[in-house]
Amino acid sequence: MAEVSNKQVIFKDYISGFPTDADMYITTSTISLKVPEGSKAVLVKNLYLSCDPYMRPRMTYTTDSYVDSFKPGSVIEGYGVAKVLDSGHPNFSKGDLVWGFTNWEEYSLITSTEMLIKIPTTDVPLSYYTGILGMPGLTAYAGFYEICTPKKGEYVYVSAASGAVGQLVGQFAKLLGCYVVGSAGSKEKVDLLKNKFGFDEAFNYKEETDLVACLKRYFPEGIDIYFDNVGGKMLDAVLLNMRVHGRIAACGMISQYNLDKLEGVCNLINIIIKQVRMQGFVITSYYHLYPKYLEMVLPHIKEGKIVYVEDTVEGLESAPQALIGLFSGRNVGKQVVVVARE
Amino acid sequence: MAEVSNKQVIFKDYISGFPTDADMYITTSTISLKVPEGSKAVLVKNLYLSCDPYMRPRMTYTTDSYVDSFKPGSVIEGYGVAKVLDSGHPNFSKGDLVWGFTNWEEYSLITSTEMLIKIPTTDVPLSYYTGILGMPGLTAYAGFYEICTPKKGEYVYVSAASGAVGQLVGQFAKLLGCYVVGSAGSKEKVDLLKNKFGFDEAFNYKEETDLVACLKRYFPEGIDIYFDNVGGKMLDAVLLNMRVHGRIAACGMISQYNLDKLEGVCNLINIIIKQVRMQGFVITSYYHLYPKYLEMVLPHIKEGKIVYVEDTVEGLESAPQALIGLFSGRNVGKQVVVVARE
Repeated sequence: MAEVSNKQVIFKDYISGFPTDADMYITTSTISLKVPEGSKAVLVKNLYLSCDPYMRPRMTYTTDSYVDSFKPGSVIEGYGVAKVLDSGHPNFSKGDLVWGFTNWEEYSLITSTEMLIKIPTTDVPLSYYTGILGMPGLTAYAGFYEICTPKKGEYVYVSAASGAVGQLVGQFAKLLGCYVVGSAGSKEKVDLLKNKFGFDEAFNYKEETDLVACLKRYFPEGIDIYFDNVGGKMLDAVLLNMRVHGRIAACGMISQYNLDKLEGVCNLINIIIKQVRMQGFVITSYYHLYPKYLEMVLPHIKEGKIVYVEDTVEGLESAPQALIGLFSGRNVGKQVVVVARE
Repeated sequence: MAEVSNKQVIFKDYISGFPTDADMYITTSTISLKVPEGSKAVLVKNLYLSCDPYMRPRMTYTTDSYVDSFKPGSVIEGYGVAKVLDSGHPNFSKGDLVWGFTNWEEYSLITSTEMLIKIPTTDVPLSYYTGILGMPGLTAYAGFYEICTPKKGEYVYVSAASGAVGQLVGQFAKLLGCYVVGSAGSKEKVDLLKNKFGFDEAFNYKEETDLVACLKRYFPEGIDIYFDNVGGKMLDAVLLNMRVHGRIAACGMISQYNLDKLEGVCNLINIIIKQVRMQGFVITSYYHLYPKYLEMVLPHIKEGKIVYVEDTVEGLESAPQALIGLFSGRNVGKQVVVVARE
């Protein structure tokens, strides 16, 4: 069987601090476009790759996470949308479109097919399966509805609110009739929150010197629900502004991922005083909700009631910079890498 | 109506740091032993007073807690057991024994009777209504069964485990068939945990230089449930030892109450990684469970299946020292002040 060339993004070695260009490199190997005889793997052509904050902790060595560290010298793993070219698995056939765990390369032989989901409809942009219709969408859905147990009229705060997850949490909260404030790191993003995603209010956290006072200004009655994507100082300030019986969904702590020494959160006593429930979650525990989520979200997308903003770069060569950009907030909306358009 | 003399413990002024003798003083005023005409108050003779950690935050000025700060120059408020001498309230009669919110003095006119509960049985020590049959007992019950949602066989860790609440949480956990480890601050207390309360293991946290490693030793498989009475460094170490889907009941943070600058907790990222639920609670939200709790605990007490250790001092004059002693861990078991024995 003839092999074809296969461009790949390789993870160089474990890092501390912010990732840089030097931590990944592009190489070209070869791959057969056929699944090995007798294997239950699938062979896919990667179309869209997803840049997600949780990938940063994988660049540091740990044995104590819900997902393995990357392997130095190996191709980077991540969520993506792909087209099946060959399949040894009964659930997948040539021509199927799938989303799930794949590799940062042109073609991938995927042996862990339990993390692949067949794409049910293509009358939405295919790249949406890296975002609103993929892992970040399900994260926003499970995190907001299952973890936050929201009620109409409640006060909701979302950090990193223009990101892949945040923009959806805010829109879900508005659909339910909550009062929603979001924060982000630039004027452009703040405008997006207010004018595109329909947040009631939004602010640029980089321009606020006193986060506690800032939150008190936006939530004079306090916060019922905090959807936390950032952790650290923002979480500390939120704790001083929670309402009685408030809920905090601990979804991500991007402010901490590049620190060698984690920031201390000092105001946890308020979890007692305000009888707050803070709950962490990992999306792999909520995959069973995916069909229910699609049923809810697809009509909203088609009717324009929920919108989704992506930040797209072209070509596998652009992937390292796109991933790095997440941690300085360079991206506006969900960061996607286009490897190929079918 | 003749008045009688009424010894009182007065709170002097707001403090920072550890409370000392100088922050309270004894005075003698007078009181009428009759409820004012037309009032719905009750007039009680105080028998047992309860020293509880939550009283320390009341000695610092705040408007942002679930319970008001003490008033400088006023008598100290707290839980206690008392006998009704006169009543203007239809629910209480002369001769009734009650527990609930009273004052640190010989006789009290109680106008907020909604915080008083009639004592249903006296075939247990009356002082138990400051502890196992009072607020700390209900705290242990609601905290363990409602907040921790425990299952047989789970790994449970309790800090301040010989205290008023901790000793009960450990025994409830053992009754359910959990594996239970407790920590305390002296050899005497550790012995109590192992030999009197039936904890599987116990350790003196003051002798441990590396709390993370210490917990790993006692919980090689990790912790399913942490009942937190102390917060701070211990909570931080626990976070690195939690199991997937673990629960933390945030009951108290006594390690923080005397600090001007709260300690930072750095390992909250593990709440996400291990999908932990951390939930704070205040016992006033769980008073409706009291009858159910009594039904469960009274037979256990009578059959000797649950034991309770109190540390008793005699006389109102001893109350300030007893309260102060809580914060250096001087007390062994529930700290009670005997004002009078009926």
